[in-house]
Amino acid sequence: MSNTPRLYIQEVSVRDGFQIEPQFVPTEHKVALINALSRTGLSKIEVTSFTSPKAIPNLADAEAVMQQIDRVPGVTYAVLVPNVRGCERALSCGVDEINVFMSASRSHNMANLRMLPEQSLAQFESIVEHVDGRAFMNASLSTAFGCPFEGEVAAEHVLDLIEKFVAMGMQGVSLCDTTGMANPRQVEELCAEALRRWPHIAFTAHFHNTRGMGLANVLAALRAGVRHFDASLGGLGGCPFAPGASGNVCTEDMVHMLHAMGYETGVDLPLLLQAAQTLPDIVGHDIPGQVVKAGPWTRRYPLPDSARAALEATQDSV
Amino acid sequence: MSNTPRLYIQEVSVRDGFQIEPQFVPTEHKVALINALSRTGLSKIEVTSFTSPKAIPNLADAEAVMQQIDRVPGVTYAVLVPNVRGCERALSCGVDEINVFMSASRSHNMANLRMLPEQSLAQFESIVEHVDGRAFMNASLSTAFGCPFEGEVAAEHVLDLIEKFVAMGMQGVSLCDTTGMANPRQVEELCAEALRRWPHIAFTAHFHNTRGMGLANVLAALRAGVRHFDASLGGLGGCPFAPGASGNVCTEDMVHMLHAMGYETGVDLPLLLQAAQTLPDIVGHDIPGQVVKAGPWTRRYPLPDSARAALEATQDSV
Repeated sequence: MSNTPRLYIQEVSVRDGFQIEPQFVPTEHKVALINALSRTGLSKIEVTSFTSPKAIPNLADAEAVMQQIDRVPGVTYAVLVPNVRGCERALSCGVDEINVFMSASRSHNMANLRMLPEQSLAQFESIVEHVDGRAFMNASLSTAFGCPFEGEVAAEHVLDLIEKFVAMGMQGVSLCDTTGMANPRQVEELCAEALRRWPHIAFTAHFHNTRGMGLANVLAALRAGVRHFDASLGGLGGCPFAPGASGNVCTEDMVHMLHAMGYETGVDLPLLLQAAQTLPDIVGHDIPGQVVKAGPWTRRYPLPDSARAALEATQDSV
Repeated sequence: MSNTPRLYIQEVSVRDGFQIEPQFVPTEHKVALINALSRTGLSKIEVTSFTSPKAIPNLADAEAVMQQIDRVPGVTYAVLVPNVRGCERALSCGVDEINVFMSASRSHNMANLRMLPEQSLAQFESIVEHVDGRAFMNASLSTAFGCPFEGEVAAEHVLDLIEKFVAMGMQGVSLCDTTGMANPRQVEELCAEALRRWPHIAFTAHFHNTRGMGLANVLAALRAGVRHFDASLGGLGGCPFAPGASGNVCTEDMVHMLHAMGYETGVDLPLLLQAAQTLPDIVGHDIPGQVVKAGPWTRRYPLPDSARAALEATQDSV
């Protein structure tokens, strides 16, 4: 189609999803899943987080995972990094991208990172300096569309923070709806303004489906001009404040919708669905993804015999 | 907001949902739920179907339900009607709206209704004639965005059928994505064209969330200019071809999204959520709705004590 730009699908399940699973996922399962995902045509995989093993025991095997996975050409292997120490660990594994993170709201930044936003920004500067061009630098902004403690987060405040990221040399910025508070109107307005002000920055939309609005928000970001989308295989991940609610936007459901709309993502949907089908065994529970259960929209069902016979009879009589 | 037209929310759970529940929902529970729903500000409630009790045993109490419910002024009480006999039963109960239904695809019409589309159209004409202005006439077109047996359904074919509905005197037309095959691009294109051709017809968008695209499709229909939306409390309903998949678009999740975007629906969301919370007891199983689990986006959580203390300490030191 003429008006269908290439989109970039970025997988976060092995970091954002596995991080909050009740059980540690063994390193070999992580590696096998990442290798399977690397062959589906995804643009980027957020492999792990180089944080303290005490803070996130589920990702204590960060080096082992990074070193054991196959690095498929064309796939960006990104990692989350909380500080310069984590950054050194990540660089020693030859990561393609360093993703730093902070919250747009003070209280969420303090609750999640034990730092004031000013301290996070200073941390970001040290990391950019330390990396010094050896990896792509991306800044992820949590609670960019609302904070579970404070409520609304002003768009101007988010834009001010993006300005600071850009000034310190960030090449990509992820706008994250950490707890599923964003709505499509807000998403379209904020994303359109960010893209207007910084057309050279790679903006990523990162949504959670906590309140069912995940794919509607993807659609809104797409209309605003966003081309990079985070999602999580099977819809893994979640929000600690909403037990029972859905997690991240589901990668295969998102790719399915985008393909049905005629967009190119470079992703092989059947391969992606195969990978998603292995997830319940890996994590030990059902996953929220819908297309794995229903099949893609191209799935056909056999016509019941009685209806077939009735139709054939009418054709005979014509 | 300036660009926020009033939207009309039409509840189908007590017909579309209860019809396929494994257990018959007792008449008094149906009546109590409809009475609760009538007080939430919904525009329309599809109360039941005046079909043969043998075909749909779950709705065998159609007359009893229609006669026992409170009729709240301002709420349209609609019923499904398959033929003139059903129409007579419906009119004897003083319904506000008669909703007739057929499929856009031959095979689905035959499998679902045991008729050819031509026969359904003839049936529609007899019903319109019989009603003769005594109730609002709406035609529902199933498989308008795709057929589980045949696959794609051409937009031109759908538009030809709408033309026939309009010519015979239908006042409203529902475009139904019966098995969750529609995608947002297709929805926006078809709905925009239908509204352009017949601006005086009340078009309803009726989506299923089978493949997770329900609310994204609502957003697309909204952009095309559709103002009437069917949805089902709790996301009840479903697709017999996709076991385990989600059902209709969930009313409270849809209203929640529309309100978050600033649209007016006339619906009291807290009252609607209260009604949704009674559903699991009525049907005996969990419901797919997300907002009942996560709470609305306006929900606030207490800041953890340690984060509060840390924030207060930094404020003291300023």
